[in-house]
Amino acid sequence: MKTLDEYRIEIETALRALNLPGGKFANLYSPIEYAMSAGGKRIRPVLTLMTADAFGEKAPEAIKAALGLEIFHNFTLIHDDVMDKSEIRRGRTTVHKKYDENTAILSGDTMLTLATQYISDVPDEILRKVLNSFNEMAIKVYEGQQLDMDFEKRESIDLSDYIEMIERKTGSLLGTCAKIGAIIGGASDQDAEKMYEFGLQTGIAFQVQDDWLDTFGDPTTFGKSIGGDINNAKKTYLYVSALQQDGEIVKALKEAYRIPAGDVRVKAVTRLYEKLGIDESAKKAVNHFSSRALKAINGTSLPEEEKERFRKLAEKLIGRKK
Amino acid sequence: MKTLDEYRIEIETALRALNLPGGKFANLYSPIEYAMSAGGKRIRPVLTLMTADAFGEKAPEAIKAALGLEIFHNFTLIHDDVMDKSEIRRGRTTVHKKYDENTAILSGDTMLTLATQYISDVPDEILRKVLNSFNEMAIKVYEGQQLDMDFEKRESIDLSDYIEMIERKTGSLLGTCAKIGAIIGGASDQDAEKMYEFGLQTGIAFQVQDDWLDTFGDPTTFGKSIGGDINNAKKTYLYVSALQQDGEIVKALKEAYRIPAGDVRVKAVTRLYEKLGIDESAKKAVNHFSSRALKAINGTSLPEEEKERFRKLAEKLIGRKK
Repeated sequence: MKTLDEYRIEIETALRALNLPGGKFANLYSPIEYAMSAGGKRIRPVLTLMTADAFGEKAPEAIKAALGLEIFHNFTLIHDDVMDKSEIRRGRTTVHKKYDENTAILSGDTMLTLATQYISDVPDEILRKVLNSFNEMAIKVYEGQQLDMDFEKRESIDLSDYIEMIERKTGSLLGTCAKIGAIIGGASDQDAEKMYEFGLQTGIAFQVQDDWLDTFGDPTTFGKSIGGDINNAKKTYLYVSALQQDGEIVKALKEAYRIPAGDVRVKAVTRLYEKLGIDESAKKAVNHFSSRALKAINGTSLPEEEKERFRKLAEKLIGRKK
Repeated sequence: MKTLDEYRIEIETALRALNLPGGKFANLYSPIEYAMSAGGKRIRPVLTLMTADAFGEKAPEAIKAALGLEIFHNFTLIHDDVMDKSEIRRGRTTVHKKYDENTAILSGDTMLTLATQYISDVPDEILRKVLNSFNEMAIKVYEGQQLDMDFEKRESIDLSDYIEMIERKTGSLLGTCAKIGAIIGGASDQDAEKMYEFGLQTGIAFQVQDDWLDTFGDPTTFGKSIGGDINNAKKTYLYVSALQQDGEIVKALKEAYRIPAGDVRVKAVTRLYEKLGIDESAKKAVNHFSSRALKAINGTSLPEEEKERFRKLAEKLIGRKK
């Protein structure tokens, strides 16, 4: 069994060997190479390789599917960045800003088909299972993105709707990365579903934690600047939690958001969150979804030492940069 | 064996029964229903059903794959319309104009995954073959669209480059519709490839004919207004043919395009095309690619009466609205 870093290096090596066409099609494929070279933790394909190894020492057989899942993830980032008009991603210019919107749309489309080709590079007897998992996940991710866009225009959102959105948009991909790894590793259907649940709940916990970090994180370790979500008036777990309070508090929150973007607004909203105990309730939510992830991993037939590796992975992912 | 119209009605009936999710996901799926209800000849899925029947009376088994190919076609139209900023498609407001660009991007993405799900609804033993054909075709279509966008910015284009573009953008999908129908119908690999060739060459002939009709067609039967390509300065087969002439003629052509869009420009460019014999050379090109399509169909093991049905289909498609 390899370390997370060894898996990540395998992914990076395989990504550098993708060997996409150039020449007359350079305008289509260069943006894909640019997007895929941004680095990062590669947590999704690492989870696929790790699960394939845990169930059947099948990481080498899972590398193409793992790449496909990472390509899919990057396709969604490119199209999301167009939709959100984001200019920076992982410290670099986004694809539609570096090239143009048409390129971002078309190279993204190409990545979705490339991803499907890569995840299909599995033995015939599991092709349909893997393909179905992948396509069902993709639909969930689009539905999640649709809910996310809808929420940005809505005045009131239930906390359960918010959780459903991040479950689809973030959780289902992590769940599917684990599930496809499990299928390739030869896991039983029951174990594959438990691994899906592990990835899904870890993904939800990760996203709530990310929302928390954006306001309450340590600026020296968080990587992004603190308060970005407040300045961009993003509908986060914290914001949606505050919306559930009585009318006076919601009124105060909306007033705080009338302060122009900057430190004064960030401080005003943060103080309101603290007063409402939302920093604590968000942490509780992270623990709640983490526990569900741990319950899922404990329910698999994996030996204890393997379970422990997944617990540590979840801890590393969710408990990062406190 | 059914008539083209009977197949088309089967497709329309199946499309009406798609039963996409509504409710909280209406903003994602309504645009898909809108796009899919535009009607048209449904030539692509009809070709799939007809080929499946010709080789094995398997049209009922091919209906899902046929729908998948039609959904894929409409996905490309939606994203192309965003990229080209087109406002009208088949006499109706385009998706990104009726809704917005973000919706067009995300609903388009969803359609690509739905298409993949539909074409995968074939028996296990042919799943990989069908899926590979579909994915390879999709990549060709994106590459064709990229070339098309590149050409719009380029001063000089070879005629062979133009043909390669429409081969990818239009031909490969028709080829794949026939090929997947053949695979489902139980055709040999050789017959399936011949059917691909038939669809491919028919598609190229169709596109060159479409370019010709836009300038030289009969306004009472063409359906679109004559001269639209000239007014939009589109790089068509006619325009690219003129570019191959000597410098003086290219100069005259570019001068004619300096006339503001309208009847005067259309007449000036049309007269130049006629003077250069480009109306005749385009017709010859249509015949050239049609002959290749007929050669392909004649090379299959289909009985003569089946071959005749495909010849008539090509004739109807290419020779339309003269």
